Amino acid sequence: MASTRDDPPVDARVVRTRNDILRTAVDVLTEEGLDALTHPHLAQVAGYSRATLYNHWPSRNALLRDAFLLRGSGDHSAPTGDLRTDLIAELTKFRSEMEQYRIHRALAVLVALTATDPELADVRDKLVADGERVLRQLLGPVLRGPELEAAVLMLSGTILNSALFHGQLPSDGVIAATVDLVLCSLKGSRPR
Amino acid sequence: MASTRDDPPVDARVVRTRNDILRTAVDVLTEEGLDALTHPHLAQVAGYSRATLYNHWPSRNALLRDAFLLRGSGDHSAPTGDLRTDLIAELTKFRSEMEQYRIHRALAVLVALTATDPELADVRDKLVADGERVLRQLLGPVLRGPELEAAVLMLSGTILNSALFHGQLPSDGVIAATVDLVLCSLKGSRPR
Repeated sequence: MASTRDDPPVDARVVRTRNDILRTAVDVLTEEGLDALTHPHLAQVAGYSRATLYNHWPSRNALLRDAFLLRGSGDHSAPTGDLRTDLIAELTKFRSEMEQYRIHRALAVLVALTATDPELADVRDKLVADGERVLRQLLGPVLRGPELEAAVLMLSGTILNSALFHGQLPSDGVIAATVDLVLCSLKGSRPR
Repeated sequence: MASTRDDPPVDARVVRTRNDILRTAVDVLTEEGLDALTHPHLAQVAGYSRATLYNHWPSRNALLRDAFLLRGSGDHSAPTGDLRTDLIAELTKFRSEMEQYRIHRALAVLVALTATDPELADVRDKLVADGERVLRQLLGPVLRGPELEAAVLMLSGTILNSALFHGQLPSDGVIAATVDLVLCSLKGSRPR
């Protein structure tokens, strides 16, 4: 929630407690699932009182909102200038975020919640926009309109589809083939 | 659960009751979300006793398993022989299943559950395999190995990514662009 001018300054200890609980919330979510993310269970795992948790977040959605926003969409790759290399690096980075932090599990919960309840849709939109930022930066100069939208949906969709619907992360070969299929239309017609 | 030889024959009335409740379970899931899918609430909405529900399905996962399997992955298009037309028709059919029955909402719940609990993973795998059947039938003769896997993940991934992560179904233009990007690699190198 946004601060107003009448709020007292938030001290460092409160911020630390808050972020500590939110990081634990994401861990509970990715390790145990949404049903396990109750205030009492989280209080126990994080080592704080239930009162502290209810005081910061009156509802589970309030807690989820802050936990997702603190977590963010993960790290990105740094473009080098070669489009194919950069697209492969970005998808590989996305896969490695899933491998290390199992962010696909948190994403799966987020889309399940927003599917029937619009309350967290803005959080999902923010994470997706940030998640797609580098892909759009790379493809924006070479694709336009529906072709650009399709390419972004296909590239991130391959990783998400594989992780969420096939229960496995895509191989290097599948990532390279995905990028090459998207880049095929640029060959010949638009020399780089 | 599998029948044993000692089970009495299941009469038509029992099957009707069972399927009636399972269809209502999918409706509750897609309209109200997973938290709403409790035995007491479903009994009320479907108009059967709680005892009947607990008797058929001792747990929520048992209920979800049968509900997802009865629902299936939805209708498919009938191939005409023109690859581009057929791929566009199949993705458009997938989109229209989402539009009409909001199956993406049920799918979102299924992936959220299987993300941390492998109990329903076989149900997800079955629905995904059936969902990809026509795409694989269309692309199997023209693509191989990682390129085939990438193409299937990209085509279905575009629709899933759009519906689940962007909160909107893809436009005709995005569907056509997706298919054209996938088919680009076939042009020239492999005449049709």
